[in-house]
Amino acid sequence: MLESKKYLLQESDIPTSWYNVVADMKVKPRPILNPTTKEPMTAEDLYPLFAEELARQEMNDTDRWIEIPDEVRDMYRIWRPTPLVRARGLEKMLDTPAHIYFKNESVSPVGSHKLNSAIPQAYYNKKQGVTNITTETGAGQWGAALSMAAKHFGLELAVYMVKVSYHQKPYRRSIMQTYGAQVIASPSMSTKAGRRILTDTPNYQGSLGTAISEAVELAMSTPNCKYTLGSVLNHVALHQTVIGLEAEKQMEMAGEYPDVVIACFGGGSNFAGITFPFLRHNFTGERNTRFIAAEPSSCPKLTRGVFQYDYGDEAGYTPMIPMLTLGHNFSPANIHAGGLRYHGAGSVVSQLKQDNWVEAVDIPQLETFKAATMFAQSEGIIPAPESSHAIATAIREALKAKEEGVQKTILFNLSGHGLIDMAAYDSYIAGDLSNYEVSDEEVARNISTLEKLI
Amino acid sequence: MLESKKYLLQESDIPTSWYNVVADMKVKPRPILNPTTKEPMTAEDLYPLFAEELARQEMNDTDRWIEIPDEVRDMYRIWRPTPLVRARGLEKMLDTPAHIYFKNESVSPVGSHKLNSAIPQAYYNKKQGVTNITTETGAGQWGAALSMAAKHFGLELAVYMVKVSYHQKPYRRSIMQTYGAQVIASPSMSTKAGRRILTDTPNYQGSLGTAISEAVELAMSTPNCKYTLGSVLNHVALHQTVIGLEAEKQMEMAGEYPDVVIACFGGGSNFAGITFPFLRHNFTGERNTRFIAAEPSSCPKLTRGVFQYDYGDEAGYTPMIPMLTLGHNFSPANIHAGGLRYHGAGSVVSQLKQDNWVEAVDIPQLETFKAATMFAQSEGIIPAPESSHAIATAIREALKAKEEGVQKTILFNLSGHGLIDMAAYDSYIAGDLSNYEVSDEEVARNISTLEKLI
Repeated sequence: MLESKKYLLQESDIPTSWYNVVADMKVKPRPILNPTTKEPMTAEDLYPLFAEELARQEMNDTDRWIEIPDEVRDMYRIWRPTPLVRARGLEKMLDTPAHIYFKNESVSPVGSHKLNSAIPQAYYNKKQGVTNITTETGAGQWGAALSMAAKHFGLELAVYMVKVSYHQKPYRRSIMQTYGAQVIASPSMSTKAGRRILTDTPNYQGSLGTAISEAVELAMSTPNCKYTLGSVLNHVALHQTVIGLEAEKQMEMAGEYPDVVIACFGGGSNFAGITFPFLRHNFTGERNTRFIAAEPSSCPKLTRGVFQYDYGDEAGYTPMIPMLTLGHNFSPANIHAGGLRYHGAGSVVSQLKQDNWVEAVDIPQLETFKAATMFAQSEGIIPAPESSHAIATAIREALKAKEEGVQKTILFNLSGHGLIDMAAYDSYIAGDLSNYEVSDEEVARNISTLEKLI
Repeated sequence: MLESKKYLLQESDIPTSWYNVVADMKVKPRPILNPTTKEPMTAEDLYPLFAEELARQEMNDTDRWIEIPDEVRDMYRIWRPTPLVRARGLEKMLDTPAHIYFKNESVSPVGSHKLNSAIPQAYYNKKQGVTNITTETGAGQWGAALSMAAKHFGLELAVYMVKVSYHQKPYRRSIMQTYGAQVIASPSMSTKAGRRILTDTPNYQGSLGTAISEAVELAMSTPNCKYTLGSVLNHVALHQTVIGLEAEKQMEMAGEYPDVVIACFGGGSNFAGITFPFLRHNFTGERNTRFIAAEPSSCPKLTRGVFQYDYGDEAGYTPMIPMLTLGHNFSPANIHAGGLRYHGAGSVVSQLKQDNWVEAVDIPQLETFKAATMFAQSEGIIPAPESSHAIATAIREALKAKEEGVQKTILFNLSGHGLIDMAAYDSYIAGDLSNYEVSDEEVARNISTLEKLI
């Protein structure tokens, strides 16, 4: 820790525009489809579900830069710019020639990067006169961020929280309630989608797919109410690019350029956030950086899923998205990285993976907690179980560099801290955690149900 | 939140010296006494208990500035300088003409100001060749900070954690364990002091006084082991003055000077930290700032205690300290602000209070949680239950300014965040918390046992 070095920016360095990677993609992602007609959707088609400006951002494939409203930038100032840190403590512990940097998104008041998109989503809804919003949350990072933003802009918020996380992480529920949001464990009896699942599988512990179904259903059946999502979609990825845009400037301050950029992967929001701004220099041929998405072995859509049109939610309410997916019925194991328990990847990252612009690895749960503990003891910060997938991958890369005797510059995104996840650390210390590998049969079974969709 | 403004310093602004208020006090605090002989103690007398440099700092009443070692400053850089924030969101919510500023010490990796002293304490012990240290912790803020610092400097650490907090805040225990410390619920069967209490009062939920006895006993009976303390003593207050020294510069950036400076009060460490640097300008007559210590109504030593020689711990192992005290046997109610459950105030603050340089107020638990929730909803940060005493006091002062129609500049210390204290917020939301007032009889009874001491 002693040796670690922070690179700090000024408030004036907070980006003034988000970077829209789709504008630069030679092979654009395929269109999302209306779940009933199977026809490509327009921004207007999304207006019933999302605030109009967010729907337009979702469909924008031409404008490279999208201006950040002053009201949003003003709120970013509460904690942005975030530090970039050279993790010399971790380097020393690993005895590696690699230089390891991390972007510290855990310093936000809610403890994660999720606030980067929660603020503009609340802002655009408020601006349009929406009064109520709904959302889902896994581990509660997104729900906590949106609760804070909703309170600030005076919106009523209902959050469907995946049941396993609701019980594993009661403090995040309390955080949302303290900010004034209503929190419902999902599946719940408050929606048709929830009731159907609870009838079929009474003890089902929930998934992000089911929670999305419930949040969408509530939004569609409530006047002046819109739905919001914390990951997967293009507009969410767009908002998160402030991470990478700042990191780019900070790597320049450090006099280095990353050989590899790493982030954990659930729906893709923090991965997009840190990688897309660097990726644009690969598009131009100027750079040849590697980008690695770190997913849990128990939910391996990027490494073992199929590229297919699939629903974003379990009940099939959402548009059909071209995604690397394990099938919208996939029921992920109860790992503590609740934010990574999602069956599919967004359309942009899926296309980029198909076209070999980005790579993916899957990490078993025990390796992530080992990495997390090493990081806590060498850098002083207790990481979120989700972020620990990125740390474990960075450690793999750093040890490979040591084995090969090459210098390498590694950048990863510390998407959040783990202070609300200490029960998970407790289980790890007690030796109670396991790895939850998914069998080939289970993957095949899920994917086979999917084939019928399109 | 939108309107709130941060004042940020550069790393080069981290103070290079701590401010030793004792050097400037016209009436010095009375000496601490050997508990057996009742004779004044020297620094050398403290060497068996504390690292020698810390013992010398404890007794130093002549040097106004004490240089911060480079190794300590390097670690301060992990999170310092901390932001000063103009809380316009809170001002707006209160509709007050007062300007409210807070120093945000919650941004440290362990979530509180305690790291400011944990680092030098671990450093000086390591430098002297000590291998093992012990300490006590209430809510766990100090224990978490010392665990991180001890791991960094390669010291083995045993922490006695007050039993009520051990159960109320299991996540802080896990944090300490993740950093590699050993944590024991106090009172425990591992010490004579603990066994005596558990024999007398089998269900006793512990107090800081008892936990100190156990930590001191373990240190004294273990080879090459020293004791460390997170508050009360002069050297701890000294280390915490980085808070006020930074805040002084930042208030200057904001173009204001505080009319009143507020901090919560347990043993006095964060209160000393933010107030002493400003107090020195009162000493010279240059300024006339008010300083308010905010203590819980359930543990009111500053407002209702007596000024008397008393032990720092329950078993009477420590030196006798001239303190405002409720008696070392005082058993505070199980409020969630575990860090404030201590029977006495340090000798310096006690003397300053006697000489009217500082004021004190006591705040009931429910008022602190109401204030905390207002702060979370207007400024986005969920505060520690301890810090909420300072917020409640700042709100009282801001509402008084509104009533009187006067502008006033208020500065308070946000000593820590409350993310590990969400169970307390849960109880508050559920209506399960109460105020735990102390009866006059209880105070009188405790103080009467004390009279016999000297």
